[in-house]
Amino acid sequence: MNPKYLVISNEIIQKIESGELQPGDKIPSENELIISYKISNTTARKCLLELEHQGWANRVKGKGTFVLNRSEDKHLTRVLGSFHAIRESFNDNLIKEGLKPKNIILEKTILENGISSKINNRHFIIEGPVLKIHRLRYGNDLLLKDETRFISLSLCPKINLLDLDTPLLKIYEINYQLQLENVERSLGTAVVNPKDPANYFENDKPMAAFQLDGAVVCNNGKVVEIEKSAYRGDKYKFSISAKPSLSMGDNLKP
Amino acid sequence: MNPKYLVISNEIIQKIESGELQPGDKIPSENELIISYKISNTTARKCLLELEHQGWANRVKGKGTFVLNRSEDKHLTRVLGSFHAIRESFNDNLIKEGLKPKNIILEKTILENGISSKINNRHFIIEGPVLKIHRLRYGNDLLLKDETRFISLSLCPKINLLDLDTPLLKIYEINYQLQLENVERSLGTAVVNPKDPANYFENDKPMAAFQLDGAVVCNNGKVVEIEKSAYRGDKYKFSISAKPSLSMGDNLKP
Repeated sequence: MNPKYLVISNEIIQKIESGELQPGDKIPSENELIISYKISNTTARKCLLELEHQGWANRVKGKGTFVLNRSEDKHLTRVLGSFHAIRESFNDNLIKEGLKPKNIILEKTILENGISSKINNRHFIIEGPVLKIHRLRYGNDLLLKDETRFISLSLCPKINLLDLDTPLLKIYEINYQLQLENVERSLGTAVVNPKDPANYFENDKPMAAFQLDGAVVCNNGKVVEIEKSAYRGDKYKFSISAKPSLSMGDNLKP
Repeated sequence: MNPKYLVISNEIIQKIESGELQPGDKIPSENELIISYKISNTTARKCLLELEHQGWANRVKGKGTFVLNRSEDKHLTRVLGSFHAIRESFNDNLIKEGLKPKNIILEKTILENGISSKINNRHFIIEGPVLKIHRLRYGNDLLLKDETRFISLSLCPKINLLDLDTPLLKIYEINYQLQLENVERSLGTAVVNPKDPANYFENDKPMAAFQLDGAVVCNNGKVVEIEKSAYRGDKYKFSISAKPSLSMGDNLKP
């Protein structure tokens, strides 16, 4: 018979394989394992170490142990249409998936004239002044997302002084007490060419990229943020799960 | 002063421009215009004709007048994560948007061994026999979607005898009385090359395409359909609207 810690780690691996536990999900902590399986703390620790050794999980100091992304195609999957997912930190997601995040700020500037964007055939407008922040977001030194956000400085005064590594949606809600009503997003795709001077992905042959256009709208109808970003297409997938009872969009159309 | 029919058609155009009326949305009928604006049927008819002449709308015999897609980038936008949208007919959507649909069935065959697909890190399996149907779906003679569906013949016996131009989700629900529990979808992207013999898009230079993987699951946990399709990236955008109160996915993660 297998030692107890292997029996339990195999049970957890089965949950990962079946999809019950998804990449980025937290694995029960040592204490939780001790209680639920009635095992010693040595066995619990061995069990978590085993998951790490086999490459199924990644321990993040002070945060816990998280399921690694081991899907065959090695794509990072992001849930579209979930406010919960949108609120998550880009960097935290990477850390949970075993990648080392790095940000380079390419441009941070105030636009006096405001900005507009057409998403899903609607115009979204932020009157000036607007903070423009253009960031390159890396995981393990590979550029994953080329992100540009435009933020209303009249709704978020002095946001340019804050640490913008915190998820921005949380900053809007907590620091500025904004009630967010809606996040509108559209996903396009295009080929990015190695020779294009505005292309930072450093791909050596033509690559498909996702192009995300987004707008965050407050409950007074004002637009707090417009986003125009590109995700590298060889690393990302976007997922969505539609349920008849919860079908979003049903109430968006007459 | 402008004649009444122009005043009203301009009002409707403003609703289209503001996004209140979206491409594919139904414009009020003659009768509805007569009642809400207290106008004659001649004025109502002139108003709808004006919208057609200006290229804002398209009358579909026996169905009504629908807003045409006039967004600057001329992309067809599809709502992700809406059961309502998934239930809509591919062909009907195109007709409403002023495009002429055409389908070519490339392959229709029964697989005795079943099929599996990994979506969002989960395995979806249909045991054989499975109906495989590979269709090329055109709008105005341009290939828009290269679609392959695999349908469980044990859940949908003899579905190969039915007219599959009806939306398949409706066939599952109505003809086979299946209770659908969940539609799982993932969207990837890749470059499709003109020289690739499996590429039917007839693009003359490398083009990005969306790659959709989908699974339709019944309330008994059985998978009724697996889809593997490609949408041409220069014509499609996928959109999603997330609201805090309705945020899907929130209940999918612990």
